[in-house]
Amino acid sequence: MKRIALGVQYDGAAFGGWQAQPHGKTVQNELERALREFAQTPVHTVVAGRTDAGVHGLGQVVHFDTELDRLDISWVRGTNSFLPKTIGVQWAKPMPDDFHARFSAFERTYYYVLYVSPVRSPMLATRAGWVHMPLDVDAMRACVVHVLGERDFSAFRSSQCQSKTPVKHLYQIDVRPQGDFIHFRFRANAFLHHMVRNLMGCLIEVGRGRRPPEWLAEVLASRSRDCAAPTFMPDGLYLAQVGYPEKFAVPAPQTGSVPWSTVWTEQPET
Amino acid sequence: MKRIALGVQYDGAAFGGWQAQPHGKTVQNELERALREFAQTPVHTVVAGRTDAGVHGLGQVVHFDTELDRLDISWVRGTNSFLPKTIGVQWAKPMPDDFHARFSAFERTYYYVLYVSPVRSPMLATRAGWVHMPLDVDAMRACVVHVLGERDFSAFRSSQCQSKTPVKHLYQIDVRPQGDFIHFRFRANAFLHHMVRNLMGCLIEVGRGRRPPEWLAEVLASRSRDCAAPTFMPDGLYLAQVGYPEKFAVPAPQTGSVPWSTVWTEQPET
Repeated sequence: MKRIALGVQYDGAAFGGWQAQPHGKTVQNELERALREFAQTPVHTVVAGRTDAGVHGLGQVVHFDTELDRLDISWVRGTNSFLPKTIGVQWAKPMPDDFHARFSAFERTYYYVLYVSPVRSPMLATRAGWVHMPLDVDAMRACVVHVLGERDFSAFRSSQCQSKTPVKHLYQIDVRPQGDFIHFRFRANAFLHHMVRNLMGCLIEVGRGRRPPEWLAEVLASRSRDCAAPTFMPDGLYLAQVGYPEKFAVPAPQTGSVPWSTVWTEQPET
Repeated sequence: MKRIALGVQYDGAAFGGWQAQPHGKTVQNELERALREFAQTPVHTVVAGRTDAGVHGLGQVVHFDTELDRLDISWVRGTNSFLPKTIGVQWAKPMPDDFHARFSAFERTYYYVLYVSPVRSPMLATRAGWVHMPLDVDAMRACVVHVLGERDFSAFRSSQCQSKTPVKHLYQIDVRPQGDFIHFRFRANAFLHHMVRNLMGCLIEVGRGRRPPEWLAEVLASRSRDCAAPTFMPDGLYLAQVGYPEKFAVPAPQTGSVPWSTVWTEQPET
């Protein structure tokens, strides 16, 4: 038995989230169907981060076990030939038995792309969140300190969340305006269900001036979902990268094809 | 009777082209339905450029005549409220009677976004053309001189083309590599049906080294569709801008929301 890891990208708008469902078009359903067709035997995948409906994957990682002996490039090209155009395997790599796509991961990075304009953009439907009023970037940046660290994020957790604990370690939130966009980057050991979208909803409340930055501390302390802003739309949310111990040498996501991928590799304008 | 011009953007992947059809989801069908719902009376639109299925509109322009008296911003917001998210009216402007969206236009600009990578990108499905092998940019640039000017473009014309003449004036083709992309810009007084996609097919043949740059001169001189390369995929094609006489003061397209829109506003790297 060999363990294989795959890097996967997908356009979340085309699917009802990651998680396999008996009826419904999900990324896991499509990926396992394509793997089965290529491998000519059922393949069960374990994923790093189960993304919601509408959330995009740039650096998603899965693993599976197989008896088959194939070249890495064959797993990539063979599986892709059975996938819809909106899902793509980027790389394949044999892994030791102690690699686990979910449990070996110590860090997840999400991007949120927010379009700020009086008129919505047809080319960004499903690709970016949208607000029609200007936002105060400094106020949003001032929120960040109130939610960083190892915290109980119950106030930002959906009622369907299956995580064993509401305590997660949020390492970083970056807010970077560029042109008509504001780009957000969230780094944590792991995220609760809807956590980024709920944080986005609160950041936007502050950015609009409806709440002061300190309000985030109140919401967090309340541990109550009722105190936070409504869950913000999934359209601009991207699972950007999953962090694993160096010994596994997991390839970096190929994001050259992704609009806005340069936002986080370039120096900030300041 | 007043004449109103609209700037329209759309994601071509969601529609069977511009042109109204009795059955089928086209941009014109959707726009006229939305205008009718807002105006509470039938509205007939005339368009600058009838784009194909899969071709995107960034700077499309239409006009229509109406008895209704509405603020410009009301035409924008009112119509948008009845449109799908993949079509958006960007601006509205009253025009003199001698303005005609199609016949007043003296120039059309198209962009083609080409992704060059061994592995295709799910986030670019329907947004960019794709080739998996590297292309010789200098060879493609060397083609350009052979097709510029006022020429008979019969070799690049689809059999369904309804233009009265195959003679068009091609002003400019720019080829600009950036990261994993090669960006193309085509400027002409007008284009024949499939002309840009057929030119792209030939440019790519040359870029792959399967034909020398001079081959474009042969293809053009043949005036025969059989001599040119196959029609290239529509996915990366964008109607970027339509040029009108200055006296009409037609607003520039708002392209700030469009990935890669900075390619043609920034200085080239060289």
